[in-house]
Amino acid sequence: MRQSMTIIPTLREVPSDAEVKSHQLLLRAGFMRQTASGIYSYLPLGLKVIQNVEKIIREEMERAGAVELLMPTLQQAELWVESGRWNSYGPELMRMHDRHNREFALGPTHEEVITSLLRDEVKSYKKLPLTLYQIQTKFRDEKRPRFGLLRGREFIMKDAYSFHSSQESLDEVYDRLFTAYSNIFSRCGLNFRAVIADSGAMGGKDTHEFMVLSEIGEDTIAYSDTSSFAANIEMAPVVNTAVKTGEAAKELEKVETPDQKTIEEVSSFLDVPAEKCLKTLLWKVDDEFVVVLVRGDHELNDIKLKNLFNAAIVEPATPEETKEILGVNFGSLGPVHMKTSEIKVVADAAVQMLENAVCGANEDGFHYVNVNPDRDFPAVQYEDLRFIQEGDPSPDGQGTIKFAKGIEVGHVFKLGTRYSESMNGMILDENGRQKPMIMGCYGIGVSRTVSAIAEQFNDEKGLIWPVNIAPYQVHLIPVNMKDEAQKQLGEELYEELTRAGYDVLIDDRPERAGVKFADSDLIGMPVRVTVGKKAQEGIIEMKIRENGESFEIPVGELLERLKTIIG
Amino acid sequence: MRQSMTIIPTLREVPSDAEVKSHQLLLRAGFMRQTASGIYSYLPLGLKVIQNVEKIIREEMERAGAVELLMPTLQQAELWVESGRWNSYGPELMRMHDRHNREFALGPTHEEVITSLLRDEVKSYKKLPLTLYQIQTKFRDEKRPRFGLLRGREFIMKDAYSFHSSQESLDEVYDRLFTAYSNIFSRCGLNFRAVIADSGAMGGKDTHEFMVLSEIGEDTIAYSDTSSFAANIEMAPVVNTAVKTGEAAKELEKVETPDQKTIEEVSSFLDVPAEKCLKTLLWKVDDEFVVVLVRGDHELNDIKLKNLFNAAIVEPATPEETKEILGVNFGSLGPVHMKTSEIKVVADAAVQMLENAVCGANEDGFHYVNVNPDRDFPAVQYEDLRFIQEGDPSPDGQGTIKFAKGIEVGHVFKLGTRYSESMNGMILDENGRQKPMIMGCYGIGVSRTVSAIAEQFNDEKGLIWPVNIAPYQVHLIPVNMKDEAQKQLGEELYEELTRAGYDVLIDDRPERAGVKFADSDLIGMPVRVTVGKKAQEGIIEMKIRENGESFEIPVGELLERLKTIIG
Repeated sequence: MRQSMTIIPTLREVPSDAEVKSHQLLLRAGFMRQTASGIYSYLPLGLKVIQNVEKIIREEMERAGAVELLMPTLQQAELWVESGRWNSYGPELMRMHDRHNREFALGPTHEEVITSLLRDEVKSYKKLPLTLYQIQTKFRDEKRPRFGLLRGREFIMKDAYSFHSSQESLDEVYDRLFTAYSNIFSRCGLNFRAVIADSGAMGGKDTHEFMVLSEIGEDTIAYSDTSSFAANIEMAPVVNTAVKTGEAAKELEKVETPDQKTIEEVSSFLDVPAEKCLKTLLWKVDDEFVVVLVRGDHELNDIKLKNLFNAAIVEPATPEETKEILGVNFGSLGPVHMKTSEIKVVADAAVQMLENAVCGANEDGFHYVNVNPDRDFPAVQYEDLRFIQEGDPSPDGQGTIKFAKGIEVGHVFKLGTRYSESMNGMILDENGRQKPMIMGCYGIGVSRTVSAIAEQFNDEKGLIWPVNIAPYQVHLIPVNMKDEAQKQLGEELYEELTRAGYDVLIDDRPERAGVKFADSDLIGMPVRVTVGKKAQEGIIEMKIRENGESFEIPVGELLERLKTIIG
Repeated sequence: MRQSMTIIPTLREVPSDAEVKSHQLLLRAGFMRQTASGIYSYLPLGLKVIQNVEKIIREEMERAGAVELLMPTLQQAELWVESGRWNSYGPELMRMHDRHNREFALGPTHEEVITSLLRDEVKSYKKLPLTLYQIQTKFRDEKRPRFGLLRGREFIMKDAYSFHSSQESLDEVYDRLFTAYSNIFSRCGLNFRAVIADSGAMGGKDTHEFMVLSEIGEDTIAYSDTSSFAANIEMAPVVNTAVKTGEAAKELEKVETPDQKTIEEVSSFLDVPAEKCLKTLLWKVDDEFVVVLVRGDHELNDIKLKNLFNAAIVEPATPEETKEILGVNFGSLGPVHMKTSEIKVVADAAVQMLENAVCGANEDGFHYVNVNPDRDFPAVQYEDLRFIQEGDPSPDGQGTIKFAKGIEVGHVFKLGTRYSESMNGMILDENGRQKPMIMGCYGIGVSRTVSAIAEQFNDEKGLIWPVNIAPYQVHLIPVNMKDEAQKQLGEELYEELTRAGYDVLIDDRPERAGVKFADSDLIGMPVRVTVGKKAQEGIIEMKIRENGESFEIPVGELLERLKTIIG
């Protein structure tokens, strides 16, 4: 591509409304422009990146046995009423009326349309499994669009849906798409994790989010420093490694702790480490009150509490409720000699290993010391109830947990019969009985993935595209287009490299060298080939964008060098 | 692709609401399904055809120097207000409000967005010309969607826009895209014509429609049987070929023609051919009345009349107006001895060559015979004023005119400064002066093109895809999947052909032979390879869909044969 024939409107200034690197750089490098809040035009370079990601997605989806189709953007309201989402989706669903006053949604996702399509066309288990995908512009009316393509209102998504007559078949396709997703994000060069996203009561295998590690991510991930384990911190199970040291149990003693309420205060006042203190909490689990114990240096994970009791709602008791039920204020709660013995007590597994610990004495201004759980408050159910922490062992037994922020770029989900039941997507099974199809759904944010790549690959000069993703592999720069030798050699190389199968961008603009080089760094093609003053001697310069290395070579070596670097 | 893994829901019945062949067959062959009126899902085979057309479009557009980008579907109302189209576009423009109650259009076309984009980024003639295109889903709320993809409400379009600082540059790019369009439709295998679409006062070179010849087309085209000349019949100039035979002029005579008013009646009553009669009409041209003469066998083309006078409105005079101005009823008008000599008289060029002709005598019930124009009504301006007819010589001097119906699949148009002026898309020219950019726009209906191909390529058994467009090139059919030899040879050939670079669809379904063959004819891949009972002997059958020819060959010859047929 000749730069004179395309449009790459680079900017020297950082656009004032762009908060994050990827947003700033994609604007500055002329990859896109905003047309309205959260709505962008992909300029030629931006579209090429999108298309490169799409190509990778298509290849891996096909390899996983998925077949492409294309469903419409306009989805009649009736389908969404059937599934129940017309009312539940809220203002993020963009809606409109046609000229006959019929209501439509602009598709944010296509569960309804594809379920409706397949219920009409598939009547028997014999036609299943089927895995269908599309790459399409989607719409979601985000309240606060931000970070450029990361949270837009019109965006490109790959969405896939699988249909099955058995859970085993769903599991198999889920695993195949899980692998496809891993391949896709690896080929995009991304540092990502497949994160257990909502294990909950379902066992932790039914949904994964693919998260690109990034400081600007909105979710916190707990991951192993040596294995592939990763989970949203809410979802990470904790393997209890606390043990008893064999310390002799001392006699329980009540000590005065005037105005000392928090673990920090008590721990400091009594000169006892937080991990030898006991945190006692009162929670409301649906309609029942429960005392919950965790170690002083741990945090209760309320999702685990909720899952333990299979509850609809869990929330902390109010100070008033606490006073009424346990007869004491928050800061002095403790499991020893409580006002009532009728209340259920659950504790995180680490609590059981405490020796000569400290807890509230159920009396304002006093704590117990030398508390030993099995001796002093034996009627307790021990469970995994705390948040995982950095430094904890990874639940898969390999490595140590670290935390990171993540950008969600993909999601695989076992839908089950959520849509086939509400929308009557029935098939005949092997025994001739009607049953709902079992479904999976699988999404990738294509434009968001591009942002995530830009977020991970840049430096102070601009973008640094991985070879697989770069709009062009080679940026060819005849420095002075008025110099006949430079111009001619530039043109010759442009032809030669194009013929050899490389995607080449030639900067044939009559711009100054400084402008050309700054633009080149900003837009970030993997290899820059500069045709400068030594053109007449047949010497050119290669520069690797990633590491900034540059070296002069004879023209004749160019192809060979490119082959080594790009392939 | 394995047929067991994809979805090709063929139908034996013709869907009742599908009027035309392409619509019927694309539904019956399982290429698409309607989800709402004028809105379709492209099933896997349908999408592959779309993508094949898109690939051809991209290649030819790039070759013509156009660069791809992608603009948003959601277009804020403000832009359309600027261009003036928010009000003028009418109910075909789909509109909606976002959650903040801002108005948007769903793009039917992108002149506003791209003009807005380029006015911000291009400030000087030095950055021009630029030709940008996109392939995108568009929206138009047709009042009566019909014919499947031919007139849908959500459809795929390629739209391109060029920007120039001079008319010459526009002319050059226009010609280049004209060629690209010709290449595209040729590669799609279509029988089409590039039709002069709205010459009018602009000279006939500023807009062409690309029309696929088809009985179901909504426009009539006049085309040459030997050259590339083609025009909408309204736009076709007529080269006058009428000449005088040298017949001696006889004396003008008034004859009685009781109740004979139309040319047919008079011609029959007087036993004179229609081409020796004169049709006399009174038209209102803006505010002026004009007498218009055409030969009895010709029809007045009112657009030519309008252009001749550069008028805003032309319409036939009412009977009352005619009576008042010319003192006589319609059927008896004539240019000889008219009531008034103050009225302007214009005539089609052929009129001047009449000899001893017939015309109304401006007196009910009477006609003149032996009328000779230059003698009997000399004060006449002769022009090209009639519709072209089948059998007329082609205006380009080559061949004879024929008529055909056409489906518009493409359109190239010199927009000029229509948008840059209303939207302030200014650049500095060579002399440092502000001036509006000059624009061209160029559209191709992608989904409509697919329909047009289906409309041209089918027979009573189903679709017959051209090799370039077919979803798969080879349809491989192991007849009996329970026969181990057939199944194994089928699988071997599937691998071998795929490895050789062919797109192969293998019918690995456990269906009866009859079903497989009927489906195969219906979906219409160019070559069918049948692995049947002679599999064990290494004999297979090839069948060419286009002509129905089939022949047995040894397996070893398959690749060679395919190379000859497909390439």
